[in-house]
Amino acid sequence: MARLNWGMIGGGEGSQIGPAHRLGAGLDGEFAFVAGALDHRPEAGRDYGRRLGLDPDRSYGNWREMLEGEAGRADRVDLVTVATPNATHFEITREFLKAGFHVLCEKPMTMTVEEGEEIVALARETGRICAVNYGYTGYSLVRHMKAMVARGDLGRIRLVVAEFAHGHHADAADADNPRVRWRYDPAQAGVSAQFADCGIHALHMASFVTGQEVERLSADTVSCIESRALEDDAMVNFRMSGGTVGRLWTSSVAIGRQHGLTLQVFGEKGGLRWAQEQPNQLYWMPLGQRLQVIERGEAGLSPEADRTTRVTIGHAEGMPLAFANIYKDLAEAIRARKEGREMDPAADLYPRAEDGLRSMAAVFAVAASGKADGTWVDARPPMFR
Amino acid sequence: MARLNWGMIGGGEGSQIGPAHRLGAGLDGEFAFVAGALDHRPEAGRDYGRRLGLDPDRSYGNWREMLEGEAGRADRVDLVTVATPNATHFEITREFLKAGFHVLCEKPMTMTVEEGEEIVALARETGRICAVNYGYTGYSLVRHMKAMVARGDLGRIRLVVAEFAHGHHADAADADNPRVRWRYDPAQAGVSAQFADCGIHALHMASFVTGQEVERLSADTVSCIESRALEDDAMVNFRMSGGTVGRLWTSSVAIGRQHGLTLQVFGEKGGLRWAQEQPNQLYWMPLGQRLQVIERGEAGLSPEADRTTRVTIGHAEGMPLAFANIYKDLAEAIRARKEGREMDPAADLYPRAEDGLRSMAAVFAVAASGKADGTWVDARPPMFR
Amino acid sequence: MARLNWGMIGGGEGSQIGPAHRLGAGLDGEFAFVAGALDHRPEAGRDYGRRLGLDPDRSYGNWREMLEGEAGRADRVDLVTVATPNATHFEITREFLKAGFHVLCEKPMTMTVEEGEEIVALARETGRICAVNYGYTGYSLVRHMKAMVARGDLGRIRLVVAEFAHGHHADAADADNPRVRWRYDPAQAGVSAQFADCGIHALHMASFVTGQEVERLSADTVSCIESRALEDDAMVNFRMSGGTVGRLWTSSVAIGRQHGLTLQVFGEKGGLRWAQEQPNQLYWMPLGQRLQVIERGEAGLSPEADRTTRVTIGHAEGMPLAFANIYKDLAEAIRARKEGREMDPAADLYPRAEDGLRSMAAVFAVAASGKADGTWVDARPPMFR
Amino acid sequence: MARLNWGMIGGGEGSQIGPAHRLGAGLDGEFAFVAGALDHRPEAGRDYGRRLGLDPDRSYGNWREMLEGEAGRADRVDLVTVATPNATHFEITREFLKAGFHVLCEKPMTMTVEEGEEIVALARETGRICAVNYGYTGYSLVRHMKAMVARGDLGRIRLVVAEFAHGHHADAADADNPRVRWRYDPAQAGVSAQFADCGIHALHMASFVTGQEVERLSADTVSCIESRALEDDAMVNFRMSGGTVGRLWTSSVAIGRQHGLTLQVFGEKGGLRWAQEQPNQLYWMPLGQRLQVIERGEAGLSPEADRTTRVTIGHAEGMPLAFANIYKDLAEAIRARKEGREMDPAADLYPRAEDGLRSMAAVFAVAASGKADGTWVDARPPMFR
Repeated sequence: MARLNWGMIGGGEGSQIGPAHRLGAGLDGEFAFVAGALDHRPEAGRDYGRRLGLDPDRSYGNWREMLEGEAGRADRVDLVTVATPNATHFEITREFLKAGFHVLCEKPMTMTVEEGEEIVALARETGRICAVNYGYTGYSLVRHMKAMVARGDLGRIRLVVAEFAHGHHADAADADNPRVRWRYDPAQAGVSAQFADCGIHALHMASFVTGQEVERLSADTVSCIESRALEDDAMVNFRMSGGTVGRLWTSSVAIGRQHGLTLQVFGEKGGLRWAQEQPNQLYWMPLGQRLQVIERGEAGLSPEADRTTRVTIGHAEGMPLAFANIYKDLAEAIRARKEGREMDPAADLYPRAEDGLRSMAAVFAVAASGKADGTWVDARPPMFR
Repeated sequence: MARLNWGMIGGGEGSQIGPAHRLGAGLDGEFAFVAGALDHRPEAGRDYGRRLGLDPDRSYGNWREMLEGEAGRADRVDLVTVATPNATHFEITREFLKAGFHVLCEKPMTMTVEEGEEIVALARETGRICAVNYGYTGYSLVRHMKAMVARGDLGRIRLVVAEFAHGHHADAADADNPRVRWRYDPAQAGVSAQFADCGIHALHMASFVTGQEVERLSADTVSCIESRALEDDAMVNFRMSGGTVGRLWTSSVAIGRQHGLTLQVFGEKGGLRWAQEQPNQLYWMPLGQRLQVIERGEAGLSPEADRTTRVTIGHAEGMPLAFANIYKDLAEAIRARKEGREMDPAADLYPRAEDGLRSMAAVFAVAASGKADGTWVDARPPMFR
Repeated sequence: MARLNWGMIGGGEGSQIGPAHRLGAGLDGEFAFVAGALDHRPEAGRDYGRRLGLDPDRSYGNWREMLEGEAGRADRVDLVTVATPNATHFEITREFLKAGFHVLCEKPMTMTVEEGEEIVALARETGRICAVNYGYTGYSLVRHMKAMVARGDLGRIRLVVAEFAHGHHADAADADNPRVRWRYDPAQAGVSAQFADCGIHALHMASFVTGQEVERLSADTVSCIESRALEDDAMVNFRMSGGTVGRLWTSSVAIGRQHGLTLQVFGEKGGLRWAQEQPNQLYWMPLGQRLQVIERGEAGLSPEADRTTRVTIGHAEGMPLAFANIYKDLAEAIRARKEGREMDPAADLYPRAEDGLRSMAAVFAVAASGKADGTWVDARPPMFR
Repeated sequence: MARLNWGMIGGGEGSQIGPAHRLGAGLDGEFAFVAGALDHRPEAGRDYGRRLGLDPDRSYGNWREMLEGEAGRADRVDLVTVATPNATHFEITREFLKAGFHVLCEKPMTMTVEEGEEIVALARETGRICAVNYGYTGYSLVRHMKAMVARGDLGRIRLVVAEFAHGHHADAADADNPRVRWRYDPAQAGVSAQFADCGIHALHMASFVTGQEVERLSADTVSCIESRALEDDAMVNFRMSGGTVGRLWTSSVAIGRQHGLTLQVFGEKGGLRWAQEQPNQLYWMPLGQRLQVIERGEAGLSPEADRTTRVTIGHAEGMPLAFANIYKDLAEAIRARKEGREMDPAADLYPRAEDGLRSMAAVFAVAASGKADGTWVDARPPMFR
């Protein structure tokens, strides 16, 4: 089984996201890292790529060079990851899709809903994979939650309660810290700060696990640190396509919480609770029975969980492996296309352009509702109404 | 130090609340149980009282008899507890206050805001104690949270996040269970079910700990079990008198959660987290430092915590002792009055008529906002606007 | 149902154990506190008793006066609690048993094995109740563990692992602290410090839950703080009458642990885990299934658990109620005798003289084995060999 | 920075250990997988190696071919990993060391103490690296514990309490399960089962963290499932070179525990607690202060922790990254030698031949003491006495 060819745009020297993607792509030996345009400074990027083992002629100075170079090769990259600054995701993703490449784009996929719709349309038109990196969905037990819901273990889902609340931006003195400040500056961050940065992961996870889309929402957005023009805390109530009621709290001023991504799902026949900080346990109570602890790696879980478990029960698995599971899905999706077969349905779980678009619509809906005292607004992108 | 005389109305044989009050009142030997009208069936009540050791002439057939009997005695009860069905609290409390008795009323104090205002006015006019039994505020570490906030350990409080979400009414088959059904029937329960029953404890605790009142709120109320006319799940956003933002989730369909009363308080200088199910630990992170575990009973806590700690560190304390702490406060308040001295300020924490009134106003505000798609409404009783 | 008459020896003003016993005895209204000899200073004791509401003629100056006074009364105390300094337990207990009283003795029941045998013989001869206060066995879920083992849920018990390890004597500077020092002084504490003080609770609990007696043991005792003549840390391996293997760790230098009493029981068909610091949850894994959380107060537990549960599920219960459960057992035992009936078998769980004797034998066995490099020794009192 | 060349012996198709090593070695891009003898069936091994991307002439049929082939190459492997069946470790490791290769050997390094001494002597003589894969020592917070002890945060270490107790061999019906049975068969497993398999990890970790060697020990070994000739449960008391007292419990019949590797370290000035199942938190109580939660990835930890942290605070990291940290150490060790410089002392933590030897001596000591009723025995290999 030959390795697939993989390239990356962005993720230059010193970035956090670069190593994470290389680790994720390389972990299973499915992808060989063969091309890159790693830095906005052409020479730095070329040099870094070479040091990482790229052939000099595939360590490009910028993404346009890479697009041109790869497009002309017989052994062109099978997948290109876009890990550049947010504002550039749209254009790069669009151009690579147009040229027939499969793309994995970092979140957010675009900066506007209109751009998002363009990408979705393009992906459908070209038939190319356009994945978006909601990496937390790669956790084995998150996938098991989805499988449990899908096979009816919980009955109709009444309620989903999601959180992504941490305290890492709680210091008012950080008003002058450039690593924090830009996040709350509309000129750089857009219409939303904490919800767009963190909340959207929790919202996407609610959709991922329930298999339902967010239709309407009402948001209470506040800047607990008053100098901020964008919210650092938000509560979002929402309604989903299958009738489920949703509640989502996100915060960056919740001192004492380190990460704070959690999901609770309550159905007619049982309830589930999962937390990213302890991702190897899933708490499950069937109606009228006791709370049980489902362990990652235990025998008899769903195919979706089994294929994303890598070490034996009782050993911790963490975020890097969740990330790698997205790549594992993509490898299967690409190989299935190459081989002209159906892909393993248990792998067909990677987030895609539609998710990126819906997320962008939700971000704008939250911002709009937040400004309008929590008025309920349509959270769907126009093309899905 | 002679014991104070105590009497109870309601709490007849087989009730849960009766033993809880007798335990709470008797625990410290501060109150002697000397009078009661324990049952709506006069003979049953008289008989049960006698079996509990009451003098036959102080085991009354109904509350009016008791009012008359006690009013005429030199050794009349120093405190009367009202633990009758909700709809009767107002009248009994009113009449005993008028007759010059101190009263501890079970929650809810009244069924309407107007009645609540009448009780507050009466308590002020008569100078009698009118306490309301928000028993969770009696926990030692809840009081320590309040003390930490009051002395400035957290700086300005930005955000408070409260929950009281359990799963004990999640079974749709319970639509026919009389012990559950009445709670969701407006004719019996009033304008609100889950919020009025549980949520209000969490809301009161948010006020208790922050020392601020709830001014405005917006509620999303839903009946996850569709046959219910009243809500079984609600999310309430609120704003407090000191500028704190509040969020409160309450549910009775959250399968997997046994009780679910928690409080998180986030200030400029630190964050706190406490849960009723594990009440002997309080999680505290000072800004920029590590999460610490504050243990009930540890040396050097606040006077408010110290006086409500009864067993040594590391030994569990539970709800019955929290309940007893309310009585301990009341004993001190009554003794101070008898002795013509100021009461210990660390004991001056029992919830009172004003809390009962504010709670009732909040219940109506939640119901109104819930019906109006979450429109923000004034949550204050008219007399406090 | 008239209250039983109860008296106490020791537990004078300022002691911790006095209020704990009064709370425990009074909690259910089963016992009326009617007599006492509360202090080794006669006047202080008489005065304190009167202030606690005793009739002046039943507030005695010392235990001999009380023995004489009560023995002559028709309404003599039904139960006397002995909560005096350790060295006096034996004599007081013996004399009250001889005079026909039921006794609840604080632990340790005696200072020697010989004395323990004398008490056991006397209790058998007189037919009086002689209970010993291993209060942790009063917890509802500890009783449920015992019931589960007894009814075979775990099959044969292979292994029991007990701990009572805290860090409250870890400060070497406390060598001069009189509240700590005496505990490690053989002249005051006898042959063992930490094992006799804490470890014995864990060992008794292992017997209580498994229904087996300790037969042989091997101990590794050490003084982590070198100036101590007695051990502050010990590991004890043991074998039980039913073939179960036991392991017990006790320590007072385990910094970071607040209390540290835990029990794990492993049988052919499942395993249990319980910790005193969170006593309202019991972790249970049936062989080949998932870990489950048993909650105190849940429906369908054993009769032994049901009768010792006092507040509804999800509300914390703590040590004082565990303590009260011992008194509740004793009330039932005494009433059954008065009424000439069999007692409720679910109440027949209070620790008794035999337990006090076996504990004393285990203390001497641990000390002997510890001095002999862990040689295995017989842990049974001679009269039970 | 060119990648180092790496080869593996064993870890053929379908094994668990093979992918784990490839993941660990490849994670940081430090090692390129260039050679292997992956299977005891020559053709299967050659074929599998080729499919994993090895050059056909470096995908060998057995380890002797590989030794010969690599020895003759200018670009010979910089490190060879030995992941074959236990009984073959000694011979392969010896021959590769003799030929001048650096080796990472799976545990156990040898089957006897004598063989272990031979390897240690050979590693010293040749100056080659001989590492042993105690992978749990790679966790970032395990390294931080070691650093805290080394820099004196805990003062003198009084006591270390280690556990590795799980319940995965608790089913008596597994007596016929070949995947379990061999472990308790002396002919295949040697003198010890559970201690040699799991307990030794905990014992090594006690040495790793305290920086002390085990000198003497006393063991209580039992077969809870009676048909087993080797122990499935053991308690080991030990004494360390720096005077620390040790206690270690290991079990495979502890139903309800999934993995169960934990370490508690108690010093004069504080106590630490860590558990492999939740490896991203370390519990620390400085004497006289509160329990604190140290988070993996927090700012200001030791250099040893910092270099082994890969994702930001709050995100889970797991066992595969711990494993990779051992390879990261080895890459630094090898590069430092190539570059003629001192290696980073924060990386100089990989377990080595001496650890493998000491472990083997401890296994034989436990077996001997266990057979002799817990007699204390010397746990050191003869060459270190």
